[in-house]
Amino acid sequence: MTMNQQIHLVSRPDGEARADNFKLLEAEVPELKDGQVLVRHHFMSLDPYMRGRMNDAKSYAVPQPLNAVMQGGTVGEVVASKNPGYAVGDKVVGFGGWQQFSVVDANTPGVLRKVDTTHIPLSAYLGAVGMPGVTAWYGLTQICKPAAGKTIAVSAASGAVGSAVGQLAKARGCRAVGIAGGKDKCDYVVNELGFDACIDYKAHTDPKSLYEAIKAATPDGVDGYFENVGGAVLDAVLPRMNAFGRIALCGMISGYDGEPIPLKQPQLLLTNRLMLQGFIVSEHMEFWPEALKELGTMVATGKLKYRESVAQGLAAAPEAFLGLLKGRNFGKQVVKLV
Amino acid sequence: MTMNQQIHLVSRPDGEARADNFKLLEAEVPELKDGQVLVRHHFMSLDPYMRGRMNDAKSYAVPQPLNAVMQGGTVGEVVASKNPGYAVGDKVVGFGGWQQFSVVDANTPGVLRKVDTTHIPLSAYLGAVGMPGVTAWYGLTQICKPAAGKTIAVSAASGAVGSAVGQLAKARGCRAVGIAGGKDKCDYVVNELGFDACIDYKAHTDPKSLYEAIKAATPDGVDGYFENVGGAVLDAVLPRMNAFGRIALCGMISGYDGEPIPLKQPQLLLTNRLMLQGFIVSEHMEFWPEALKELGTMVATGKLKYRESVAQGLAAAPEAFLGLLKGRNFGKQVVKLV
Repeated sequence: MTMNQQIHLVSRPDGEARADNFKLLEAEVPELKDGQVLVRHHFMSLDPYMRGRMNDAKSYAVPQPLNAVMQGGTVGEVVASKNPGYAVGDKVVGFGGWQQFSVVDANTPGVLRKVDTTHIPLSAYLGAVGMPGVTAWYGLTQICKPAAGKTIAVSAASGAVGSAVGQLAKARGCRAVGIAGGKDKCDYVVNELGFDACIDYKAHTDPKSLYEAIKAATPDGVDGYFENVGGAVLDAVLPRMNAFGRIALCGMISGYDGEPIPLKQPQLLLTNRLMLQGFIVSEHMEFWPEALKELGTMVATGKLKYRESVAQGLAAAPEAFLGLLKGRNFGKQVVKLV
Repeated sequence: MTMNQQIHLVSRPDGEARADNFKLLEAEVPELKDGQVLVRHHFMSLDPYMRGRMNDAKSYAVPQPLNAVMQGGTVGEVVASKNPGYAVGDKVVGFGGWQQFSVVDANTPGVLRKVDTTHIPLSAYLGAVGMPGVTAWYGLTQICKPAAGKTIAVSAASGAVGSAVGQLAKARGCRAVGIAGGKDKCDYVVNELGFDACIDYKAHTDPKSLYEAIKAATPDGVDGYFENVGGAVLDAVLPRMNAFGRIALCGMISGYDGEPIPLKQPQLLLTNRLMLQGFIVSEHMEFWPEALKELGTMVATGKLKYRESVAQGLAAAPEAFLGLLKGRNFGKQVVKLV
């Protein structure tokens, strides 16, 4: 009998999420039924959207149920199969949750996808060639609509999504300007990822100082802005938006704990005739094949770089997740289980 | 020699606009040159956008110059012509400003347009069949994208723009819900204009009360919102927006004086995957012919109703304009000069 360690959500946060909202449990892996496969997770993904789902409130999706395995993306290996489409040893990406193993009804469309790890590391399918990468691709190409010579700005620029936004923008001939927390992240964004500039928001606690730093990095204003953060960063970028600028609203992690953070100057949306579009990438599945093709090719050829923060072992997931919400990760946050 | 009374902007507001920002002057009407026509204004238009242009700040357009005639739309009659395309007696709509007469280089494309007053009153070309009507048409059809059965909400619903938004939405099979200031305006919006409901925001000074009233009037949520007001009204409508809702941001009159009014819950734009688009109708001239055709037909056939607040005489313009900014007008605010 195989035992399966799991992490459940056992209480909802009142303000900040805390480690004791989660609990490590152990369960038996059930017998496979026809059509099912058993996946052993090698990596699981930690993503900011999960914080929203911990609340019992209207958000992207239905809330994460209490006293159930935390949901989330996983990559792993098929270790048992009663499905003719999957063989033991197949590498797969799925939505197995915070646990060591998952039993998957593999005939259900979209729940499991075999992936090739010849040229692309398995964990990348949780990041640059996975949901975060497609998020970057969709928001940039379908909402910001970049064109050569335009300026694209992105917050959380060293993160899984932001790093891809800037590199995809550079590949399209844009000026890419990042905003990130800390000198190390900014150095990485410029020197390793090839952004044209990166502003360390932690070095500018005064709104005017942050605005001036963004202004200096965007001499021609901002044509497209990809927002992962919200709050003070959004307030500082908005006045730099050019007329007819376009904003892809992907995340507002700064406000995920506690009270909403007001937008200080909404009138700029009007006076600059801006377009703003909130989105969640799982509602645009029709774009995934095209996006994954470009992202996969770029990763395989070294043109799309990424970095990972790797937490070791399932038990480390809650603290790693809380750190992600504080920006303590550096690049895509994953948990290594094998 | 013809004397021409004019109103100039002589100072910029510091906070609220005041009557002494304006000054009534008299100037001679110059001799016509070849290609020019002299138009005697019958009505001039007062519009909220003028307040933004009184500031020396980035707004829709270049600021209104100091010590020059206030700019604005006008309708009138050609009283002298040195242009073969225009004859004395022609009724024309133009942008003659706050004055009794204007000399127009009528060969310049777009500055003057002959209109038919057989079925449509001359003043309507400043309202329902003019810039405000096209504003309503553009924001509704091109941004809110209404479909039968959907709910369209609009603020300043008894005004020149808002009244057209709701009636155009009804013509497309939508539920139309207005927000207006005062019982008289709301009664008019429902009983005369045929909206399905109208909320009197002045009866709900508490944000929660306003939200509850909007909720009661929008049992299926709001799919498209046409915003003329901003501030507390926008804060109250935003939580009623359905997923994938669309917001046409046309005006934020509540914040035109003084400090910007923050948007309290910007995260709703993300969680409900909303699209918001700021716009100014003069940047979308390609839609005017189609819009004016529908609006003109609807007015001529009695299907698009409107109401006017008519100030008498040029000298009354500043007070009428300040009243407009306070919502004291009822329907389209014009000044009758003849």
